[in-house]
Amino acid sequence: MMDNLELIKSISISSPSKIVLLVIDGLGGLPEPQTGKTELETANTPNLDQLAAKGICGLIDPVGPGITPGSAPGHLALFGYDPVSFNIGRGVLEAIGTDFDLEQGDVAARGNFCTVDERGLVSDRRAGRISTEKCAELCQLLDGLAIDEVRLFVCPVREHRFIVVFRGEGLSPEVSDSDPQQVGVAPKIITALRSEADRMSSIASRFAAQAETTLARHHPANMVLLRGFSQRPHFPTMGEIYKLKPAAVASYPMYRGLAKLVGMEVLETGTGIEDEFATLKQNYTNYDFFFLHIKGTDSAGEDGDFDRKVGIIEQVDDALSKLISIEPDVIVVTGDHSTPALLKGHSWHPVPILLYSKWCRPDKVSEFSESACLSGGLGRFPGTQIMPLAMANALKLNKFGA
Amino acid sequence: MMDNLELIKSISISSPSKIVLLVIDGLGGLPEPQTGKTELETANTPNLDQLAAKGICGLIDPVGPGITPGSAPGHLALFGYDPVSFNIGRGVLEAIGTDFDLEQGDVAARGNFCTVDERGLVSDRRAGRISTEKCAELCQLLDGLAIDEVRLFVCPVREHRFIVVFRGEGLSPEVSDSDPQQVGVAPKIITALRSEADRMSSIASRFAAQAETTLARHHPANMVLLRGFSQRPHFPTMGEIYKLKPAAVASYPMYRGLAKLVGMEVLETGTGIEDEFATLKQNYTNYDFFFLHIKGTDSAGEDGDFDRKVGIIEQVDDALSKLISIEPDVIVVTGDHSTPALLKGHSWHPVPILLYSKWCRPDKVSEFSESACLSGGLGRFPGTQIMPLAMANALKLNKFGA
Repeated sequence: MMDNLELIKSISISSPSKIVLLVIDGLGGLPEPQTGKTELETANTPNLDQLAAKGICGLIDPVGPGITPGSAPGHLALFGYDPVSFNIGRGVLEAIGTDFDLEQGDVAARGNFCTVDERGLVSDRRAGRISTEKCAELCQLLDGLAIDEVRLFVCPVREHRFIVVFRGEGLSPEVSDSDPQQVGVAPKIITALRSEADRMSSIASRFAAQAETTLARHHPANMVLLRGFSQRPHFPTMGEIYKLKPAAVASYPMYRGLAKLVGMEVLETGTGIEDEFATLKQNYTNYDFFFLHIKGTDSAGEDGDFDRKVGIIEQVDDALSKLISIEPDVIVVTGDHSTPALLKGHSWHPVPILLYSKWCRPDKVSEFSESACLSGGLGRFPGTQIMPLAMANALKLNKFGA
Repeated sequence: MMDNLELIKSISISSPSKIVLLVIDGLGGLPEPQTGKTELETANTPNLDQLAAKGICGLIDPVGPGITPGSAPGHLALFGYDPVSFNIGRGVLEAIGTDFDLEQGDVAARGNFCTVDERGLVSDRRAGRISTEKCAELCQLLDGLAIDEVRLFVCPVREHRFIVVFRGEGLSPEVSDSDPQQVGVAPKIITALRSEADRMSSIASRFAAQAETTLARHHPANMVLLRGFSQRPHFPTMGEIYKLKPAAVASYPMYRGLAKLVGMEVLETGTGIEDEFATLKQNYTNYDFFFLHIKGTDSAGEDGDFDRKVGIIEQVDDALSKLISIEPDVIVVTGDHSTPALLKGHSWHPVPILLYSKWCRPDKVSEFSESACLSGGLGRFPGTQIMPLAMANALKLNKFGA
């Protein structure tokens, strides 16, 4: 049976109209007990409110009611890919997050520096959370190895976390983790889960053995644990599905990597909110779809900093006026999930969305907020349906059936 | 896993209660910029409003958010059939649209009269859009042929379009199109896509050759292009699924044909709105489900005629009083899709729905309009769920599970 992406692919058409998807990471929040208002409701957002008044609003569930999305599933949903069936391995996700340029055939794994005792049993899976600087030093000791014509890249992530990428012929990700996920036992032997992964298991095991030797005198980080061996997935691109020429503006590597996985071109940009909007404007004529990612809201939410999150939303609102002035045919503003400052982390709460286009059948919502969106014309719907809606509003979808 | 139709089939029961599904084709609209009101919101509709006040309202997505339904998918959804998995071939759909009575085993194809140059290359796929009268004349030249004991029916549709139906033993629709979908090339050779279609490909090819000879002196319509070979699909009937005895009242052939495909009896009726309501009333005792189809709203929308669409909605409202007076147990009023006059075509916007029954748990909506339905008790939901709701409100569904 035809799945949803096939359906969209069969009716999508290329046209000059332009769509902008502005993702304010972790946008949704929870009300601050004293004021009863969320971060978005507290922020002064004249431009978002004006757009909400002219457009149509609602609430999305990125993955499903009650499900708290990680960054990858949240964004895959926004791009129209069912985040449950389109899976990205942990190693690949971690590699993407460091801006590592994975090639087809590479196998990536997520690594921890850990502590083993004199008997070889894991006593601390995180090696006392060594500093990121220390992690980078140790990675240098292991980086650049070659084992049986397979080249190894070892790159720091943060604290005790690193990635290792294996590049060579005939590698398969179908091997087991060495991370035992508990202390008091030895690292597990890496084994092939299918016969075609024999070579990979041998090379990964030799890497672990080499790491043990090299790190022997670097207690507490005297061993490595590996998990999530995976290869870059083959997703149909947004060009194939939607016949779009899509570009991404994102200052964090994870989001650039996710955009690359679905075939977007990643534009060079600065780290500020103004920089990102300026990059979009400079490249406006060359693409017909823009994904613009704002990270600060999520970080502030994770830090539990309600006021900082409010401030960043206000900065985005301010920058938005520039985007509105160039009059894209469709503007969508939403988030990949909620990150309420009160919860200090991602959450399952549905995320406000506004869609503006000439053809959107406006509702009566005149303020962009969680509570106002509740009575919006888009209702509450799965995040994967944003792209079909945006495409329809850009008049980029033919009629289905006669 | 049990699909939705199997579930309904397992709990549906026959009973004397009666359901009327009034489909106002292309009902949903977009607000006229000066008034901010849609066609339905502009129309004076005391009867619909009264029914909305006593009933429960909402908005449906016939196929899905962002998807603009053709007439066939839109109606299949209203009858409870998933329009993505229940597919109707183009030839069959076209035949249905001319009121042609397809028998099991018939293969129907959609045809174009086209122009070929002296080298046999297609120079105009539509033969200069010849008149419907001319098309009928040319069809007469080809109609009634018999090739290898297969009888051919050639019937005009509109302008350059016609249908050809092949009736005989052992025909398969699994053959390729002859329409190359471009000019400057020869018509494509019709080939069997599976071995059981060898006979069909041979007969279709001989028909094309015969047409070339017959039409040689009828430039610009000197050749035919065929596509969408298909057979009448085997859908479970509404009688099987719902245990209903259903009847259709529709003045346009396409909708009579769709109703036949799902097992409805098609009643003879006149072309006016009053005629259709009168037909329903005359046949009221003989059936327990009525599909009443109003075409004019869609045609007015496609013509971009806002005021005419408003006028037709008012006529329907007027006629509705007769229906209300005979007190069906369940009345559902909705559309198969939106056709905003501003867009001059079908659109993806959700369609207002009202359901009235003694058991409907009324909401606070007191006006039948796109904006009022937004806060209706039915919420926003897929069109395929209308039939289960109507059946439940007619007390025709048993409890599921013990």
